[in-house]
Amino acid sequence: MTEYKLALVGFGGVNRALAQLIAERNQQWKTELGLTLKIVGVTDLFLGSIIGRDGLDAAQLASLPAAKGAFAQLPGGHAEALNEAVIKESGADIIAEATFTNPVDGEPATTFCRWALEAGKHVVTTNKGPIALHADELKTLARRNNVAFEYEGAVMSGTPVIRLAKQTLAGSEMSGFEGILNGTSNFVLTRMESGLAFAEAVREAQELGYAEADPSADVDGYDVRLKVVILANELLDAKLSINDVSCRGISALTLADIDHARADGARWKLIGAASRNADGSINASVEPRLLPNAHPLAGISGAINAVSFNTGLLGAVTVSGPGAGRTETAYALLSDIISLHNTVASAQE
Amino acid sequence: MTEYKLALVGFGGVNRALAQLIAERNQQWKTELGLTLKIVGVTDLFLGSIIGRDGLDAAQLASLPAAKGAFAQLPGGHAEALNEAVIKESGADIIAEATFTNPVDGEPATTFCRWALEAGKHVVTTNKGPIALHADELKTLARRNNVAFEYEGAVMSGTPVIRLAKQTLAGSEMSGFEGILNGTSNFVLTRMESGLAFAEAVREAQELGYAEADPSADVDGYDVRLKVVILANELLDAKLSINDVSCRGISALTLADIDHARADGARWKLIGAASRNADGSINASVEPRLLPNAHPLAGISGAINAVSFNTGLLGAVTVSGPGAGRTETAYALLSDIISLHNTVASAQE
Repeated sequence: MTEYKLALVGFGGVNRALAQLIAERNQQWKTELGLTLKIVGVTDLFLGSIIGRDGLDAAQLASLPAAKGAFAQLPGGHAEALNEAVIKESGADIIAEATFTNPVDGEPATTFCRWALEAGKHVVTTNKGPIALHADELKTLARRNNVAFEYEGAVMSGTPVIRLAKQTLAGSEMSGFEGILNGTSNFVLTRMESGLAFAEAVREAQELGYAEADPSADVDGYDVRLKVVILANELLDAKLSINDVSCRGISALTLADIDHARADGARWKLIGAASRNADGSINASVEPRLLPNAHPLAGISGAINAVSFNTGLLGAVTVSGPGAGRTETAYALLSDIISLHNTVASAQE
Repeated sequence: MTEYKLALVGFGGVNRALAQLIAERNQQWKTELGLTLKIVGVTDLFLGSIIGRDGLDAAQLASLPAAKGAFAQLPGGHAEALNEAVIKESGADIIAEATFTNPVDGEPATTFCRWALEAGKHVVTTNKGPIALHADELKTLARRNNVAFEYEGAVMSGTPVIRLAKQTLAGSEMSGFEGILNGTSNFVLTRMESGLAFAEAVREAQELGYAEADPSADVDGYDVRLKVVILANELLDAKLSINDVSCRGISALTLADIDHARADGARWKLIGAASRNADGSINASVEPRLLPNAHPLAGISGAINAVSFNTGLLGAVTVSGPGAGRTETAYALLSDIISLHNTVASAQE
């Protein structure tokens, strides 16, 4: 049994859900997974920060009011986000990074990951920014410092897609993938199939909390593009940058397009895809595609995400599941911790 | 780089496809997977047997005529199946068992596995019989002899389902699963949706080589029942025997049933399922179920298989892919070998 000391960087929905899981399930994990987690620090740009090297009360953390500087209410807490201290000086073994995604330079998350890895701490993150933009540098840093750097949740929250492809499909000769990688846009397309116009469907997605006030990142494909970069680089060793991926969203699709598709036994889906050509080059794109109903992604409705891997030995293998959600994304962090635990444990046998 | 010596037990389509893959890809695997495979023995009740401790020519094996006693044509080959000698005395590190499934007592495959494990050899198998009927005994034997016993291909050929659930979904709090676990019956249902009566659809499946002359194991649910036992015992620790799983096939479904389902926005599917009740008991069944079109398994058409795992932390996560095929099932053996290689390699670090 191993106890890992954990520092949480970013305390929005995801790390808060992780704190809640720790509060409820630590004893169960001891038996089932052979590990327990002790939170020794938390920092958040809005809420402030707290360090407790002997362990903080996870339930108390999970119920902290979402008010500016709220950590100052707790004994030993601060209204300021002492990020560097929490990462480097809390005594943590593992940093769980779950701040916001910055698609331009991946900051400040990339700096947080860098600090942690340089200090010899394992990093688990659900943040697309550092992975899409700086994965090579951070992976090299992790190797050099002999620590784990895991980021299953950066693509489809807790639905395993990176480990599924890299571990359980090893040797299957993957040549490409197609994915429905944004739940909001898929929800919008599904609602348009019920007769709602694009703008109405977007409004409904906003009311349900799926879409942001500015829905552009979702419906124009920019969120999917980051995920295509991550998957192509991880699974196809593609070395892509964001600008290598052509990107077109769903805002030009009309109800007439949707109706024509239905009449033809097909559905419009926003597809993020990459494939390796015979010469080794990679094509990668985000675009609306007309999928025949028999296509493995055609049946994916609502806010569900899915990726279909094209393999030489198996043909298409498809996984679908949630692509968002607080607890679902917190599970991604847990699955990263389980993975690093198994690696650390087997190295110590 | 590790070279594993491999003995093939049963030389029908699956192990023959594995020999073909070895002939074509051994050099590629050396680089990509860090392993190569050398075939040192083959035995088959119909074709006979051969031992070559220094390595047999995989391409020559793969092209052996499918004639009774054909191994006698090769230098050093025998018309008889010297099973025990090939398993115990060929110098193999790994036994790849791919004989026919016997749903009554799992023989002779179970004996072959037992011999191999007792002799300290790793076993990889695609055979449902030994796993559904004797998994506990064989797993204990493997542990005692400190060897691997892997059987990913026993449920969905090369589509990863056991490792996906046990490894990449560890800690997700799995409470049950529903699966489309027989491609033939799903093909028949899909063709009935195009207007073919049950008997016509079965005949078409037979003409395409999907269904046996006696289609009962497929359409009456017996094949699915074995897979439900395997999955329930692996994923839910259910300790089920075959008779614990209620079983009803699709032969009573009529075109009128199919049409009513379509009118209601639903599809009939043959579902193998198990779930854990609040008191810890397990319900397991094989039966036709009417799935609303939004259900993750409703869109699975033709000969494809799929399993939807119900988890506490993620909701439903679904994987679909081939459930049969020679190369696809040979890949399952390869994936088992990769898995044991990674375990052996990390234990030796």
